[in-house]
Amino acid sequence: MNQLAQLNNRIVNRVNANLAEFDFDTQSFVNNSLDHDKMLKFYAFYGITSRHPLYFHFKKSNIAGSYFLGKCYVGRSAIYKSDVRGDELKREGDTILGAKNIPLVDDEMIVIRDSLLYKTLVHSNSHNPESPEEFGIRNTIAAHYVNIHGSTCEGCFLGPFATVDLMNLHSCIVGEFSYVQVGELFHRKVDPGTVWIKNQNFEFKYKFQKEVLDHYAGVNALYQPRGIIYDFVKEREQDYEKLFDVMNLEPIYAPASSAVNRYAVTQGKTRIGENVLVSQRAFLENAVMGDGSNAQENSFIIDSTLHGLNVTAHGGKIIHADVGRGSFVGFNSFLNGKAKAPIEIGEDCIVMPHTIIDAEVQIKIPDEHLVWGFIGSASDIENHSISLDDLAAIRESLTMGKMTFMGKGSVFIEAFRKRINQILSTNGALFQDGETRGHAQDDQNISFNLIQPYSTGELKGLYPSIRIKP
Amino acid sequence: MNQLAQLNNRIVNRVNANLAEFDFDTQSFVNNSLDHDKMLKFYAFYGITSRHPLYFHFKKSNIAGSYFLGKCYVGRSAIYKSDVRGDELKREGDTILGAKNIPLVDDEMIVIRDSLLYKTLVHSNSHNPESPEEFGIRNTIAAHYVNIHGSTCEGCFLGPFATVDLMNLHSCIVGEFSYVQVGELFHRKVDPGTVWIKNQNFEFKYKFQKEVLDHYAGVNALYQPRGIIYDFVKEREQDYEKLFDVMNLEPIYAPASSAVNRYAVTQGKTRIGENVLVSQRAFLENAVMGDGSNAQENSFIIDSTLHGLNVTAHGGKIIHADVGRGSFVGFNSFLNGKAKAPIEIGEDCIVMPHTIIDAEVQIKIPDEHLVWGFIGSASDIENHSISLDDLAAIRESLTMGKMTFMGKGSVFIEAFRKRINQILSTNGALFQDGETRGHAQDDQNISFNLIQPYSTGELKGLYPSIRIKP
Repeated sequence: MNQLAQLNNRIVNRVNANLAEFDFDTQSFVNNSLDHDKMLKFYAFYGITSRHPLYFHFKKSNIAGSYFLGKCYVGRSAIYKSDVRGDELKREGDTILGAKNIPLVDDEMIVIRDSLLYKTLVHSNSHNPESPEEFGIRNTIAAHYVNIHGSTCEGCFLGPFATVDLMNLHSCIVGEFSYVQVGELFHRKVDPGTVWIKNQNFEFKYKFQKEVLDHYAGVNALYQPRGIIYDFVKEREQDYEKLFDVMNLEPIYAPASSAVNRYAVTQGKTRIGENVLVSQRAFLENAVMGDGSNAQENSFIIDSTLHGLNVTAHGGKIIHADVGRGSFVGFNSFLNGKAKAPIEIGEDCIVMPHTIIDAEVQIKIPDEHLVWGFIGSASDIENHSISLDDLAAIRESLTMGKMTFMGKGSVFIEAFRKRINQILSTNGALFQDGETRGHAQDDQNISFNLIQPYSTGELKGLYPSIRIKP
Repeated sequence: MNQLAQLNNRIVNRVNANLAEFDFDTQSFVNNSLDHDKMLKFYAFYGITSRHPLYFHFKKSNIAGSYFLGKCYVGRSAIYKSDVRGDELKREGDTILGAKNIPLVDDEMIVIRDSLLYKTLVHSNSHNPESPEEFGIRNTIAAHYVNIHGSTCEGCFLGPFATVDLMNLHSCIVGEFSYVQVGELFHRKVDPGTVWIKNQNFEFKYKFQKEVLDHYAGVNALYQPRGIIYDFVKEREQDYEKLFDVMNLEPIYAPASSAVNRYAVTQGKTRIGENVLVSQRAFLENAVMGDGSNAQENSFIIDSTLHGLNVTAHGGKIIHADVGRGSFVGFNSFLNGKAKAPIEIGEDCIVMPHTIIDAEVQIKIPDEHLVWGFIGSASDIENHSISLDDLAAIRESLTMGKMTFMGKGSVFIEAFRKRINQILSTNGALFQDGETRGHAQDDQNISFNLIQPYSTGELKGLYPSIRIKP
């Protein structure tokens, strides 16, 4: 057996050992996802800027089609077409929430060992106070379009379109299209289609109906993704190819305060405002990006207008929609408007992560509303949205359809607002007069470097050991 | 001053210190050659195969547009658009001529420190028995289209189109378009346009007239190249650009036993026979490459036929010519035939390195002849060629025009034949039934990897430190 096959087997066995209590076998997922020929075909990339600490070390791994920025170690792993974007890692001397008295003794580094990340995003920084210098992912398999966002993972399987946000997971299974932000989780299986946010002050929980999930973002018996969202993404895959076929692309016009990543698709009549960030593998078609708006990795903005100061979180999809100023669209949301049935989101709205809006009639969300779950018709709006004022008035709990909320609504809204402002600031949306720089300003001059695996011999499919530092 | 400018200054000062006795100042050459904007623009490449030892370490250097294969360290140097092709380096346990009792304790590595190599080729392996594991280039400036072929250099300036072959140089100046293969050379200045081969058995020496040299491959007051050969190369530079603009090229058809490097230009009606090697930055246009022929780095074969088992050494240029089976065309030769005045080289001929044939009438060299120097008309043939039989009869010395030969002609011919056969073998021309593999067979599956410098900041123009091993 060649070394690439051995690598896959070792990862499968290690993850299975961690998930033994669930009687969960990752073998069929891996066998059906990994195509060794494709793992030979694609280049890997790393980006170099003068504004981020630099350290890459790749060893005994395949990293085909993946993109790396910042500081990252990858050992005995297969990282296929993934984005590992370490430009928000903490620096030496920084402190972390929950460990304010433990300043980092070193720049933080993403460390991926014995893991398989398949079309996965790894981003932000570790929110684990136990390991502030290391954003660790070990013995973990993450499937198609998973977002590992500021979360350390040990011995986990994350299903397609799952998001784990600002937390730490140990020996967990997170079902497809689930969003979890609950601090710390040990030996738990999270059902598919769960949207779950919890801290000491509040808890938000929603669960998609099985039939809705199967229709939009389910998995088949082999844990491979299926459904409308997967088809939507897959149909557009070939549009990325031209980005990777040529060395130098004529860039789309963007103001000096904005960054459009060279590996983003921009087509049709697309306009870029000031302080805009368009990340690697974002997809814009006939998109108006108002000042201070962003399109993060794996997001799609098609035939839509973002009026300004908008966050489109990783994997968010906005089609035939008009998004008011200051509104936030969360991870992996699917706002599937049509030319004859557009979607209108008012100002300062919060579209919760993993929200699906897909109706045959126009859907209109008023200003300052929270939206969640599945809206398949005009009547669904009632049970899947609430004005922020009404939510702020909640003191103990609220149940609406399949959503339950516990805690003070005002605290929840305040926490969300704070986070949105922090995201805008980090991404450079608030840049003015040379102050408050963010990714839109700092990520403009990235040098991209390409690496390839051995194409023949015993090491075929593995990359040489490579170490890069300033 | 930024670090790239500091780097240049340091190299200039170090080389000047080594050449102080000649009152030679490299400053103006460097100032006029190096364009810092261009040093930012081009990617560097390295190749990975399963058949060559792998180790790259680049540190505090600019390596724009350069290509690396094998094992190579570059420190505090500027290597601009150069080919550093380490696929003929010796391996652990090998021995070297002149030190048969000292087997290598490590694989050989090319080590370049404090040097500027500008469009230079570094190839083969060190023929210095004093440092068999290290092919060292230090405190050296090599100008446009220099060939550093199996030669260690310390404190040298090598002028445009110079070749140093299988030797060791210490504090030497080698003039433009000179070819030197004389074992070891200390503190010497070699006049421009000198073709000089010397060992314990024989000596061959020829010197181009100054006016011929100025016309074809001179330098101006700033040590920049000028003349017809430089113009010829420069005119075709843009044809290489398309090779570097796209990630994947549709390869030209070649038999399974042949290798056409992905960074070679092949255009017009070009045909590739069996066991053919076409190297990086070779240029073929309407070229018929007979079985077992090769086109090495920076060679040009245009509107010409090579009948088979032909060596076109690095920088050789063959235009409107017919080259008979088994004939050898040496380094940087310029066989400038025209449609109405073609050049015909017979079988088993030796065209000496740095030969220029450029006449307005057809030039025909019979079988088994040695050719050298400048042939600008039919009458020049008489004084610039000799049949190998006549040369073999020479016992002590021979003078023909500006050429002098001392020693036994038969020994000279035997040494040359041996070397040609070794070149053919190394390049895979003699491959048959799976035996006698060479570059044509081993260099087919090269994975190319691209790296870029910092594009902004204090380190602008320098490459991050990068270390690559298996």
